[in-house]
Amino acid sequence: MRYELYYWPQVQGRGEFVRLALEEAGADYVDVARGTGGMERMQKLLHPRSSEHPSLAPLAPPFLKAGKLLIGQTANILLFLGAHHGLAPKSEAGRLWVNQLQLTIADLLVEAHDTHHPIAASLYYEDQKPEARRRAETFTKERVPKYLSYFENVLVQGGKTAFLAGRTLSYADLSLFQVVEGLRYAFPNAMAALETRHPRVAVLHDRVAARPNIAAYLKSPRRIPFNRHGLFRHYPELDAKAA
Amino acid sequence: MRYELYYWPQVQGRGEFVRLALEEAGADYVDVARGTGGMERMQKLLHPRSSEHPSLAPLAPPFLKAGKLLIGQTANILLFLGAHHGLAPKSEAGRLWVNQLQLTIADLLVEAHDTHHPIAASLYYEDQKPEARRRAETFTKERVPKYLSYFENVLVQGGKTAFLAGRTLSYADLSLFQVVEGLRYAFPNAMAALETRHPRVAVLHDRVAARPNIAAYLKSPRRIPFNRHGLFRHYPELDAKAA
Repeated sequence: MRYELYYWPQVQGRGEFVRLALEEAGADYVDVARGTGGMERMQKLLHPRSSEHPSLAPLAPPFLKAGKLLIGQTANILLFLGAHHGLAPKSEAGRLWVNQLQLTIADLLVEAHDTHHPIAASLYYEDQKPEARRRAETFTKERVPKYLSYFENVLVQGGKTAFLAGRTLSYADLSLFQVVEGLRYAFPNAMAALETRHPRVAVLHDRVAARPNIAAYLKSPRRIPFNRHGLFRHYPELDAKAA
Repeated sequence: MRYELYYWPQVQGRGEFVRLALEEAGADYVDVARGTGGMERMQKLLHPRSSEHPSLAPLAPPFLKAGKLLIGQTANILLFLGAHHGLAPKSEAGRLWVNQLQLTIADLLVEAHDTHHPIAASLYYEDQKPEARRRAETFTKERVPKYLSYFENVLVQGGKTAFLAGRTLSYADLSLFQVVEGLRYAFPNAMAALETRHPRVAVLHDRVAARPNIAAYLKSPRRIPFNRHGLFRHYPELDAKAA
């Protein structure tokens, strides 16, 4: 079966967490909205006529078509892919733990987005710059350290060769890699200072980046570069001052 | 087995979504932090010494202790309770759909919270009032209608006797009830106008409220009243003008 991933074609955004899982799994998939006519197909699934696709439309991208299943919400797509591609433990405790980590990452992502859009996603960044400065300062000084310390602690307790859920990689590890990538891009000064205090998180990032399927993906044109339209955005005025 | 729910004792907050599921299921549970010494027990689980509870501590309440399992993140707790108490379909498609709805509600909750805390959760409302006004205006004018229309559409397509996931109640229905409760409390003027355009959502709210276990719970002292410390807060200056 070929999966169909639906997401905005110009950004990594939340779709990237799904792309990383599909790439690590070596799954057969097409990134629909990046192809000809793909945006129209995405809009049609988001706004179906009731006769076409009753009641199961997602509210927003990303979503994944897996045969007859149409699965929305990033963490929900990953719950599905984790179970079908060995990217999560099989035990109930293990599955819940990885889902819990992913939802914690999802919380961080909302906060990262809101550093540049604290008032409204429907307004331009330029219309909320003073508010963005205030929000970004709390984010880099309080919130990122809180999240990174949490993940660092999980990794420390697991031991030297640990992933977040034990000795085997899960989709939460792929997502934490992407969080580090995004934070490095958006807040290079803040992250330079923070990473020295969270060495296990940095090591996990590098281990994920070195996995053959991920390494090949990151070098491929399938990996969209970071830019100022995505979830993680680099505005120097929102970053900490250089040390 | 008696479940132990851990959540801040003075507010409904995110813990309320778990309480509603436990109450509907008639499950045996204790709301730990509301009892003597409960806050200390909650803090100990959140900040364990590594020897006591390796690596599985949640980042924040609510969390649920179910025997040896310690489950964090609201949607994750509900995923667990849904499977064990008949509050979600058994099929994979059904479980994913209910989880997807719950995660969509989780997105709305972050936005509802950020109407009174658009800059930082660590600051007082009084320190971010102008920003809160701007954010709340977009929330009530654009975001709440978007979410309510989405859920209305799901219910309309399911037919007159439908719940969100078919003919049987799921935890997503309980959560949508709570969203309506919270929005009515926080934004009475905005909601009075919106509810007439989303009648199925209002009917679902009433059907949930009338269920015997929920009705008994809502009248009991276990239901904490809404207040200005919780997720949904009523500040008249953030609501729409009366019609």
